[in-house]
Amino acid sequence: MRPWMAPSTITLTTDFGWTELPAAIRGAIREVAPPGTEVVDITHSVPRHDVIQGAYAMLTTCPIFRGAVHIGVVDPGVGTKRRAVAIETPAGFLVGPDNGLLFPLAHRLHMERAVTLTAGTYWRAPVSATFHGRDIFAPVAGHLAAGVRLDQLGTPIDDLVQLPAFEVHDHPREVRGSVVRIDRFGNIVTGIPSGYLVDQIEEQEPVEFRIGGRRVMAQPVSAYGHIEKRGFGVIVNSAGFIEIAVSGASAAQRTEALPGDTVVAYK
Amino acid sequence: MRPWMAPSTITLTTDFGWTELPAAIRGAIREVAPPGTEVVDITHSVPRHDVIQGAYAMLTTCPIFRGAVHIGVVDPGVGTKRRAVAIETPAGFLVGPDNGLLFPLAHRLHMERAVTLTAGTYWRAPVSATFHGRDIFAPVAGHLAAGVRLDQLGTPIDDLVQLPAFEVHDHPREVRGSVVRIDRFGNIVTGIPSGYLVDQIEEQEPVEFRIGGRRVMAQPVSAYGHIEKRGFGVIVNSAGFIEIAVSGASAAQRTEALPGDTVVAYK
Amino acid sequence: MRPWMAPSTITLTTDFGWTELPAAIRGAIREVAPPGTEVVDITHSVPRHDVIQGAYAMLTTCPIFRGAVHIGVVDPGVGTKRRAVAIETPAGFLVGPDNGLLFPLAHRLHMERAVTLTAGTYWRAPVSATFHGRDIFAPVAGHLAAGVRLDQLGTPIDDLVQLPAFEVHDHPREVRGSVVRIDRFGNIVTGIPSGYLVDQIEEQEPVEFRIGGRRVMAQPVSAYGHIEKRGFGVIVNSAGFIEIAVSGASAAQRTEALPGDTVVAYK
Repeated sequence: MRPWMAPSTITLTTDFGWTELPAAIRGAIREVAPPGTEVVDITHSVPRHDVIQGAYAMLTTCPIFRGAVHIGVVDPGVGTKRRAVAIETPAGFLVGPDNGLLFPLAHRLHMERAVTLTAGTYWRAPVSATFHGRDIFAPVAGHLAAGVRLDQLGTPIDDLVQLPAFEVHDHPREVRGSVVRIDRFGNIVTGIPSGYLVDQIEEQEPVEFRIGGRRVMAQPVSAYGHIEKRGFGVIVNSAGFIEIAVSGASAAQRTEALPGDTVVAYK
Repeated sequence: MRPWMAPSTITLTTDFGWTELPAAIRGAIREVAPPGTEVVDITHSVPRHDVIQGAYAMLTTCPIFRGAVHIGVVDPGVGTKRRAVAIETPAGFLVGPDNGLLFPLAHRLHMERAVTLTAGTYWRAPVSATFHGRDIFAPVAGHLAAGVRLDQLGTPIDDLVQLPAFEVHDHPREVRGSVVRIDRFGNIVTGIPSGYLVDQIEEQEPVEFRIGGRRVMAQPVSAYGHIEKRGFGVIVNSAGFIEIAVSGASAAQRTEALPGDTVVAYK
Repeated sequence: MRPWMAPSTITLTTDFGWTELPAAIRGAIREVAPPGTEVVDITHSVPRHDVIQGAYAMLTTCPIFRGAVHIGVVDPGVGTKRRAVAIETPAGFLVGPDNGLLFPLAHRLHMERAVTLTAGTYWRAPVSATFHGRDIFAPVAGHLAAGVRLDQLGTPIDDLVQLPAFEVHDHPREVRGSVVRIDRFGNIVTGIPSGYLVDQIEEQEPVEFRIGGRRVMAQPVSAYGHIEKRGFGVIVNSAGFIEIAVSGASAAQRTEALPGDTVVAYK
């Protein structure tokens, strides 16, 4: 037995936009979850089919909802043979497609075990071809909140799909990571935690980056307003990741960076 | 007496966008509804004044919230002589303008009776000319959640405005319906339930459609990814309706289809 | 002791867009607030850094949530020396940056006292440079909901930053105010309450306005639909403010009005 009680909160992260589809997921949860279970929208503004940016939103926001069940639906493969999975961690459960979306969060929360969802008795009937969020993930999350155990939901697996964009490779002269988000101002968020560049940032030494094919020199700053006009700045964002910005312009446009592009920081 | 207790959930569907206006409705509900009443946003992204697409969102999403009070506000006639109504069904109540918005859902839930809202004692005071969502529909819904009976709210009527777009006419050689939604990818959702074309879909026979003035031949598929390049596909969507899509492009642009346009499927 | 109990509702108004950032604020509140505290999104669609339009959303929508704690985050100065404040009123608390955002609402609710937030013991640790919504405002609001007193949060102040856009100057021949909102249809909302023009509106006399450098003559109407083709109309909006609209077009584009511009109405 786990030391915690069944989760009383379920979070939702999708690429559906703020249409009626997230409400349908919420309704399907309520058919199954105990009264009083709270459903929290993380966001539904993930760019369509952008698994990397969806993973970033989950990784950076879900952990504050300790012990919750986290549903993620950025699922270009819905209706194909991609697996559906549930993951158990000491700090809650994750439910969604096995396409890497859940992996960075699962890793952060010290994943203990995972199953591929095969026990159809915990799904809605009939299951549509295109809306597994409502028909599979929502009821499975609701059943977890009702106390169903992970091993009842399906078959154990140990080969979850990973997302290379969140891997960081540290070398003596450089750190390699990836672009994991372009925010609405065109700032480039990397998957590199600030700890890798702690010396340069504390010393306020300019850092050279290669993003895609471009090289830029960026000045460490503590706030966007401190970036020199037309210059690049490097900032530790509120999630602890290295972010590259341009004053009053889009760093992503200037560098043509896209989510998934390699970022190298030279030390 | 109804066999159920007073509703403990109220849903909201509007064309206000995600501005502060839906929050004002939520606040007005809380002034009246019993503590613990949950207010659920279905969506506020209905295109402005688009009664057909609003009706589609309510029809396809509200039923999962069984026993709730459903508020709909897509109301180009607010402040004019259009009636405001409340409708009782065995599966919950509906509140909104009498412009057809509520009718498809009311019909689906087996409407039992309706009243035009005349009992001002259940409204906020003063009632603004432009925001009946906050000043009439919200408090009326809150009072229904508090146990007020339909007949206390106004005068019985039996001539609710209907929405022809959701009518389906079945003939030996063709089925006639309408476009009820253009989704954000340009897919054309029709108001024709899949049952009318069950043979063609099961046999994977191409179906000829006339949409507005255009004719297209569409191949039944189980997922968008299976549509042939540049060809039209026909799919049963997650709400059970016939949907027409183009691979990697907008079917609505290709056909110039708009909500309300006639769709004919040849059998 | 106040006659009310600790607030059980916390509202959020931000310019973050409907990203995952508001959910992080919600999570940070839940770390501190008593179980059962409800968090209500007013809106996250305030245009970026537009303190005036943020203040308008709070002023017009928060009062219906009586006794709540209202968090506002439109905060271009985050990470600089601008103060963070909490304000107590007989009808609830306000928490946010001291840049004028909270002032119109605080004034409306008959502000009693204010403190600058200095007691870091009520914050999350560590505090990021860019996300005080999550790290300072959310936990402070949560502690207020848990019964912490205003004077425990910081140092009393009596020089809150005010927002001139919400001041109205009444003269014998004219009323002076400002544009406080451009809505998504281009309607110009002024900060002038309808009472200042009650005679003209009741008599349906045309009103001459100067907005920025332009003069327009507007006809009082009770609904947008009654505005003459291509003409300007003046309407009392659902929040009781004077609003200037054009039939089927954008009044803001026609007049080049922006939030903060002076509006003069001639009597």
